Amino acid sequence: MSAPTIRFAKKTDCKAILSLIQELAVYEKAENEVVMTEEILIKDGFGSQPLFHVLVAEHENEIKGMSFYFIKYSTWKGKSIHLEDLIVAEKHRGLGLGKLLFDATIKEAQKMNAKRLDWQVLDWNEPAINFYKKLGADIDETWYSCRLNEEEITNFFS
Amino acid sequence: MSAPTIRFAKKTDCKAILSLIQELAVYEKAENEVVMTEEILIKDGFGSQPLFHVLVAEHENEIKGMSFYFIKYSTWKGKSIHLEDLIVAEKHRGLGLGKLLFDATIKEAQKMNAKRLDWQVLDWNEPAINFYKKLGADIDETWYSCRLNEEEITNFFS
Repeated sequence: MSAPTIRFAKKTDCKAILSLIQELAVYEKAENEVVMTEEILIKDGFGSQPLFHVLVAEHENEIKGMSFYFIKYSTWKGKSIHLEDLIVAEKHRGLGLGKLLFDATIKEAQKMNAKRLDWQVLDWNEPAINFYKKLGADIDETWYSCRLNEEEITNFFS
Repeated sequence: MSAPTIRFAKKTDCKAILSLIQELAVYEKAENEVVMTEEILIKDGFGSQPLFHVLVAEHENEIKGMSFYFIKYSTWKGKSIHLEDLIVAEKHRGLGLGKLLFDATIKEAQKMNAKRLDWQVLDWNEPAINFYKKLGADIDETWYSCRLNEEEITNFFS
């Protein structure tokens, strides 16, 4: 069996990326929340000023997982990375792809001298919490997440 | 008394911006965490590809508050805004500057068709939580915040 490759995504990977996004949304019980399309991913991630970066795990000519992140900014520390999604397709778990993707993300963080690597995890997602704890992450329950969605933004003044 | 002005920050506002960042860090009991400098803010926020945007509330020739945000990306929804800090200097509270800054941030979100406006609040910061609830924010306790800091990133493979 060949070894998996971790590399930056290309435009042509966007179909596989969307499929991973949809799979995670099902797991997070929010599949109806996904309005993303392949076209939007191509436009937003592969133009002259990409809004995000994706590392994919390719194995046996198939994209089996990805690390999807964007640059964030901490007013205390400076330029940092927000890891939006770390996903390995369920049927391809146990190959160590998650660790390979996380390691590759750390290497990118090191290259850009990121001051922090931040991400979020659902409080009931124990396998993920344990995985992140093993990687040495600080897991903090003292912050609440606040949000206005698109409709609330649109109608804010009406 | 003249009305406050909400406008985008200029390079020359970075000293005042840093001062607001430091004031908030004291309030959040983390003043030793701030390694930010005026020079880094100028470099990161006012070059050809700014890593963040700042709206300031100017009143009586003084910067009294700010909304500090950056572009984030939701894999489900697309291009969004993360409001990193909304700060009004303590001695200038009660003038309605927080609401003016929040409204101006929403207007920017509307202009760029942001799919979400996200931010975080400390679980013990009741005045802020109440302010955000009044603005219609969904406040969610089901996500934990995960983090590796600079040292942990640097030493990850050692």
